Amino acid sequence: MATYAELSRRRFLAGALGAGGLGALVACGNQVGQLEGAPYAINTTRNAAAPPANRAAASGSGATPPASGSAADPMNMAPSVGTTSASAGTATPAKDWQAMNQMHEAGVKTFLAQPKTIRGGQRMEYTMQDGIKVFDVTAKKVQWEVTPGQMVEAYTYNGVVPGPEIRVTEGDKVRIRLKNDLGDEATAIHFHGLLIPNAMDGVPFITQPPVNPGETFVYEFTARNPGSHMYHSHLNSAFQVTKGLLGAFIIEPKDKSQYPAFDKEYTMILGDGPLGYTLNGHGFPGTEVLTAHKGEKLLVRFMNEGLMIHPMHLHGMPMTIVAQDGYVNTPYKCDTVNVAPGQRMDAIVDCTEVGAWAFHCHILSHAESEMGMFGMVTALVVA
Amino acid sequence: MATYAELSRRRFLAGALGAGGLGALVACGNQVGQLEGAPYAINTTRNAAAPPANRAAASGSGATPPASGSAADPMNMAPSVGTTSASAGTATPAKDWQAMNQMHEAGVKTFLAQPKTIRGGQRMEYTMQDGIKVFDVTAKKVQWEVTPGQMVEAYTYNGVVPGPEIRVTEGDKVRIRLKNDLGDEATAIHFHGLLIPNAMDGVPFITQPPVNPGETFVYEFTARNPGSHMYHSHLNSAFQVTKGLLGAFIIEPKDKSQYPAFDKEYTMILGDGPLGYTLNGHGFPGTEVLTAHKGEKLLVRFMNEGLMIHPMHLHGMPMTIVAQDGYVNTPYKCDTVNVAPGQRMDAIVDCTEVGAWAFHCHILSHAESEMGMFGMVTALVVA
Amino acid sequence: MATYAELSRRRFLAGALGAGGLGALVACGNQVGQLEGAPYAINTTRNAAAPPANRAAASGSGATPPASGSAADPMNMAPSVGTTSASAGTATPAKDWQAMNQMHEAGVKTFLAQPKTIRGGQRMEYTMQDGIKVFDVTAKKVQWEVTPGQMVEAYTYNGVVPGPEIRVTEGDKVRIRLKNDLGDEATAIHFHGLLIPNAMDGVPFITQPPVNPGETFVYEFTARNPGSHMYHSHLNSAFQVTKGLLGAFIIEPKDKSQYPAFDKEYTMILGDGPLGYTLNGHGFPGTEVLTAHKGEKLLVRFMNEGLMIHPMHLHGMPMTIVAQDGYVNTPYKCDTVNVAPGQRMDAIVDCTEVGAWAFHCHILSHAESEMGMFGMVTALVVA
Repeated sequence: MATYAELSRRRFLAGALGAGGLGALVACGNQVGQLEGAPYAINTTRNAAAPPANRAAASGSGATPPASGSAADPMNMAPSVGTTSASAGTATPAKDWQAMNQMHEAGVKTFLAQPKTIRGGQRMEYTMQDGIKVFDVTAKKVQWEVTPGQMVEAYTYNGVVPGPEIRVTEGDKVRIRLKNDLGDEATAIHFHGLLIPNAMDGVPFITQPPVNPGETFVYEFTARNPGSHMYHSHLNSAFQVTKGLLGAFIIEPKDKSQYPAFDKEYTMILGDGPLGYTLNGHGFPGTEVLTAHKGEKLLVRFMNEGLMIHPMHLHGMPMTIVAQDGYVNTPYKCDTVNVAPGQRMDAIVDCTEVGAWAFHCHILSHAESEMGMFGMVTALVVA
Repeated sequence: MATYAELSRRRFLAGALGAGGLGALVACGNQVGQLEGAPYAINTTRNAAAPPANRAAASGSGATPPASGSAADPMNMAPSVGTTSASAGTATPAKDWQAMNQMHEAGVKTFLAQPKTIRGGQRMEYTMQDGIKVFDVTAKKVQWEVTPGQMVEAYTYNGVVPGPEIRVTEGDKVRIRLKNDLGDEATAIHFHGLLIPNAMDGVPFITQPPVNPGETFVYEFTARNPGSHMYHSHLNSAFQVTKGLLGAFIIEPKDKSQYPAFDKEYTMILGDGPLGYTLNGHGFPGTEVLTAHKGEKLLVRFMNEGLMIHPMHLHGMPMTIVAQDGYVNTPYKCDTVNVAPGQRMDAIVDCTEVGAWAFHCHILSHAESEMGMFGMVTALVVA
Repeated sequence: MATYAELSRRRFLAGALGAGGLGALVACGNQVGQLEGAPYAINTTRNAAAPPANRAAASGSGATPPASGSAADPMNMAPSVGTTSASAGTATPAKDWQAMNQMHEAGVKTFLAQPKTIRGGQRMEYTMQDGIKVFDVTAKKVQWEVTPGQMVEAYTYNGVVPGPEIRVTEGDKVRIRLKNDLGDEATAIHFHGLLIPNAMDGVPFITQPPVNPGETFVYEFTARNPGSHMYHSHLNSAFQVTKGLLGAFIIEPKDKSQYPAFDKEYTMILGDGPLGYTLNGHGFPGTEVLTAHKGEKLLVRFMNEGLMIHPMHLHGMPMTIVAQDGYVNTPYKCDTVNVAPGQRMDAIVDCTEVGAWAFHCHILSHAESEMGMFGMVTALVVA
């Protein structure tokens, strides 16, 4: 996965957002795009103040109260209507919009500054042994920084969420050595999407014994089917996977002409479990910004390792869905692609539009509360 | 959006349902379609009685008790199974089916009478200024009649849910003047699906400052990509959008030959927030019936502004999905189309079958309770 | 639907899993696939012990506690993150992994032994009367064994969940006589997906009166559109359908060349209501295993009669989705197919890979808890 460090962040963002950065962008100096009711030129810092000590926690603990009572509990939607009806004529309590703006702004600023944090999903190193690519994977618990300053216990492969990306080429012989250092839980790896001998499929008590605490299990197979795949736990999986035992497993095609052309790529793994709503193991504002140069074709490999379906929406430009689960199908264009748990959708974005484009789950309660954006939100910056 | 008023409702429904209306339809006079166990000819009015004073509220407050404990809380499904198991042998309490029938019938009757109510989504007027189509949009709170007699506080564009439809033609220059009269909340408009200059994209603190109470913000751009799009709030959006700050933004193609032919069209915007489960801002029985003449090709533009995915099911005839998010893709046929938040699906129905066809979300708990149909239910009447 | 009894179960499973069965499979005798940290050869029975008296109930009542507080209540995800944040540094309580393994293994063993239970969905017999195929359907309550030993009250057609499969050929004249023996609820049958005269569409108070307790209603029509369809209640449907008033209605095409070739077929009806998470009316380990011989093309007809969307994932081999809702569309390949309530997806699996392949909903909380697999899990065994 291309890392943001490949580009000078400050320079790049400045370029993308114009010479004056974000402030210049919003003060564009003609009637259009200006606030008419404001006595002075408005810029985005007017409400600037110290952000709450723990913005993420605040966003968490008190988020979206109206939604909690209604939209957040959608199966009780009808009753909530009845309740609302009973109090018809009663308006929602007056809000402190200045405080709300302040929190929204603080989140965006933190995001645009791209706080230094550990990024999972970096490509995993391997060693060659007798013509086999050997990857060492250790399952272990760590404290993981989901958003700046917010630490959550995660189950990880090699200490990061997502686990390091395993990337090989079609036809490669691959060996994965799984060490279980979780301490108090057995585990196993399922190679989700791979055509694989049954004994390597990673389902405890069906294809293998569980890998108990302290044990090591060796998987070995040939990478047969190219595409965007995954590896994750298949034991106590609703818990272990959502806690972080997951990663991308990408098999590049031997013959690249069988796959649409692209210039740059990102993998975006969706999560919605004990770590909160996440993109690649981080929630906004800790999410990584995507960058591209104008004219580039960007491949985004969506992978869903959560328990919910997420319709991912990109502002500004359409996506062409060129493959599902590694299989190149009839392409279709959209701006909101539904990604269900277990699915991988390969989207190509023709980066024709310059700017900072929001990129988020369109289940809005996964992306924004009264305290600002959170969770499954990032941006694609095209410069 | 074509309004129901375009046709004489009574005459049309009578025509669609046969000379004697609904009663004639259900008493069709031969063994088939008759109740054998009934001593007399059965018709749908046998249980007629005064409907509950506030049927919608009743449907809301006490809806679907069995589902509340089980299906309505699906993540606790397994526990509910265990609970049920513990009481194996215990049947559900006996029900008063006559009262249930009565409530079901009352809802259908109210629906078929199409109660007079305010319909949102009517086409917005514009003024031409220097070759630009100028639309004035005011965000404000109103009391909104979701179902007959049931008032709920809504956030609206120009006082209605959905906001008035903005409809222009590809290549048009468009100006939208947003006035924020919400009183105690900032807001902003995102033009969902439009190719647009970044500064017009409506994401506070990223592309513009928030539009605070009392302020006006001017958006201006050229309508580039034809299709079924939307406009909605992008600030505190999980709340503001589900409260009603949403509308259709349709760009007609300059060259209509690029789009499949149709005779008539409806837009159906899905909602599942504080207003309950809604189609175009209303829940059954307050929803608008769709009508078509036999042989017409009907375009239905599904748009999801809610927080949940809704599989919309049409009885009687298939739908051909011709476009997603405004992009004309390889068409496919179905009778149940999944529409996720943020997505727009254009479906063409070849109206070959005469009758009153139910048209509803097939997550049945969004459509029916023990007290009758509610929420995301309407009908397509082909005559 | 082909029944498992068509094959000698023991012989077949033994064949599929190798000469020594499951034990042999996991003790494959070379470094790969072996546990390195284990002092002795590991096999899957090492933790064998008496399974809990009521494993299913245990799985139900205490399932997935971490998920209950976080992933299981996903709309409160953000708050849970906040909560976790507050206790950063606190690890999850130590687990008894041996007990967990034991429960996981017990479930798999029960499943692989394929407990004797009543299977719904067997093809319904009909009588010919004046050239019409006549099917008799009685709606009634029974105690239904969802998983071995776990009885739950179900509403059924002819005493089973799913109701017996109705299968006819395009062009057939069909008569369905529905007797309502529910006792205390009216009902009606909707033929979901069929092109049908409006009066036969089964929507009480719109196309017919309700069929009250003790009454019989006769439906009659010609089977016009081939494909995988369904029949289910359309009265109090969120309750009645999820309690079990559902079944497959398959219309075979007159001209089979219009449909992709296959050698064998299964129907898999998804449920998530008061019976728990089910495949064809049973939860794991009570689910039916699918079997095929290597080289066969297997048709799986997915049908969703639940209230949630389920992404069904097959290990080991891709599926080609050849039809939706009975309509043959442009095919696409995947390994995880999203099936929404009301939808039917026809998938063809080219059974090239030998082994026992897990086949489950990939919303992992519908498939596995700390106490083992449950709910929407089965396996495809290719031998």
